[in-house]
Amino acid sequence: MSDQNLQIRLAKRPTGAPDASCFREERGPIPEPGEGEVRVRNRFLSLDPYMRGRMSDAESYAEPVAIGDVMIGGTVGVVEASNDPKVAVGEQVLAMGGWQRYAVAKGAEVRKLELPPERLSLALGALGMPGLTAWWGLTHIGQPGVGETLVVAAATGPVGSMVGQLAKRAGARAVGVAGGPEKCAFATETLGFDACIDHRADDFADQLAEACPDGVSVYFENVGLPVLRPVLPLLNDHARIPLCGLVAHYNATELPAGPDRTPQLLGVLLRKKIRLQGFIIADHFDEFGAFAKEVAPAVLDGSIVVREDVVEGLANAPEAFIGMLTGQNFGKLVVKLGD
Amino acid sequence: MSDQNLQIRLAKRPTGAPDASCFREERGPIPEPGEGEVRVRNRFLSLDPYMRGRMSDAESYAEPVAIGDVMIGGTVGVVEASNDPKVAVGEQVLAMGGWQRYAVAKGAEVRKLELPPERLSLALGALGMPGLTAWWGLTHIGQPGVGETLVVAAATGPVGSMVGQLAKRAGARAVGVAGGPEKCAFATETLGFDACIDHRADDFADQLAEACPDGVSVYFENVGLPVLRPVLPLLNDHARIPLCGLVAHYNATELPAGPDRTPQLLGVLLRKKIRLQGFIIADHFDEFGAFAKEVAPAVLDGSIVVREDVVEGLANAPEAFIGMLTGQNFGKLVVKLGD
Repeated sequence: MSDQNLQIRLAKRPTGAPDASCFREERGPIPEPGEGEVRVRNRFLSLDPYMRGRMSDAESYAEPVAIGDVMIGGTVGVVEASNDPKVAVGEQVLAMGGWQRYAVAKGAEVRKLELPPERLSLALGALGMPGLTAWWGLTHIGQPGVGETLVVAAATGPVGSMVGQLAKRAGARAVGVAGGPEKCAFATETLGFDACIDHRADDFADQLAEACPDGVSVYFENVGLPVLRPVLPLLNDHARIPLCGLVAHYNATELPAGPDRTPQLLGVLLRKKIRLQGFIIADHFDEFGAFAKEVAPAVLDGSIVVREDVVEGLANAPEAFIGMLTGQNFGKLVVKLGD
Repeated sequence: MSDQNLQIRLAKRPTGAPDASCFREERGPIPEPGEGEVRVRNRFLSLDPYMRGRMSDAESYAEPVAIGDVMIGGTVGVVEASNDPKVAVGEQVLAMGGWQRYAVAKGAEVRKLELPPERLSLALGALGMPGLTAWWGLTHIGQPGVGETLVVAAATGPVGSMVGQLAKRAGARAVGVAGGPEKCAFATETLGFDACIDHRADDFADQLAEACPDGVSVYFENVGLPVLRPVLPLLNDHARIPLCGLVAHYNATELPAGPDRTPQLLGVLLRKKIRLQGFIIADHFDEFGAFAKEVAPAVLDGSIVVREDVVEGLANAPEAFIGMLTGQNFGKLVVKLGD
């Protein structure tokens, strides 16, 4: 289709929700790999909430994308040219290839994938960072026990859907939260959640309480206050809250109106002896092998269900990303790059 | 002095800070133990912040004191009469004897103390619930490492002073927070804190930051927002926050003014991958033996310093308790009951 590279670069930092003007397309030559580097033809680009953080220069756990730079992002693709003897042309690899058709990366920084070519995008979702996030947070913090109730929001997203399914496999009850009846039906009918509550319902908090008659022992936090608030009174003694994201707050330009409810949260954590622990999955890539060993067979044989929301063409990435931040995606959002 | 019992009972529930009208004295006959019970002549009564919670009927981890009932509290004393063959007259015991001279308790619910008689009150502080609180929170959550910096408020109080000294023994730097120069001097000169900052200083936050040039790896939370706020920006990646109390908020009748800063706290916990965990020491009395084995020798030989604030006479307990909630005590507050 094209013998040029196509890239999406950060045009400006967003104030509040990003819009199309924050991104710009650029065409240029196909890059040549230097010493020890490889060129990858990207086949899929992952779109994830953490990227919103990288668009800002507020303090974070990682450096922001510089204005004018290619937007960062995980990619899967095929090696087209290699100056690293350890990486062969034709190999399927995972890389931080960014929002572009062709990427150059150090050979040592790509990871070879043994997935069937038609399932390559799994390495961006269920068998990639989001899946590892779900598994790590449950294994090390959430630890759902038999018969305990777990709540997770964005239940049809890549993290939430894996959290719910892993919790079920551990013998727990899984209660999801999602936006709209279609997602809720998918969560219960296809993913196997015991219940899924539409957070857009007027009586969301009441419905959630009804779905958790024995309280909540694990709340997997990936959203923030809109779900944490109604969960707080349901939490059981010794509940665990793995905290991997706060997507409801990423676009916020100011704090919510008062009063300052921080003491309320602290009071619940104290009285109910709760463990709340943040984590960033990049710290734990060394556990990828243990995760894959446990989870990959079930994903590949279909006993763990994976839903992807595939957007065609890099030019549509900004709009898809913007929509994801308000829950417009339905499943793991990936961009399929033109052949 | 008296062959009557003297008791302090809850007269009414406080709104905000309790005052003298919340308590009333009552005199009555010396109680007789029933089957399986013992009568204890209380020698010391412990005054602790948790008692403020029991005066309220707000939801908590424990039942409130009923209006008209004797105020609850830990006591040490001597068994005067026993209908339990396992507890002998003359034995020194710890009990939940309450704010009164004589208490009747089940023999099975008192704990025999092997302390020297003149050091009996240690069982209410350094070698009792506050000491166990410090030890448990550090052992299971805080885990200060060699060279790491720990911050704890109420540094001259029974929990804070033990936290700081145990942290030092573990090779960490201990930075205290206390109210006023006298307490700060005691913390550094006698307790061995590396620094202690007066929270009443106008530039408290700046001084705290200066005292923690390598950030804060453990914040032992026993106070709440007035100290947590300035600590937040100092927290290191993977910091640990054991949460055992929120004394700054116990008298609050409303939440602090807005905006709602809860997302700020959650954001720090996420970005810095922090573990914040509440605990109530009553859940962990089964570990008392391990605690005592590790800590008692150092307390008894003076290598862990203990400071008590001894109030003479039960009639002065309400005023001392009210003062403690605003930091008027200097050391573990105990009431010495008349002979």
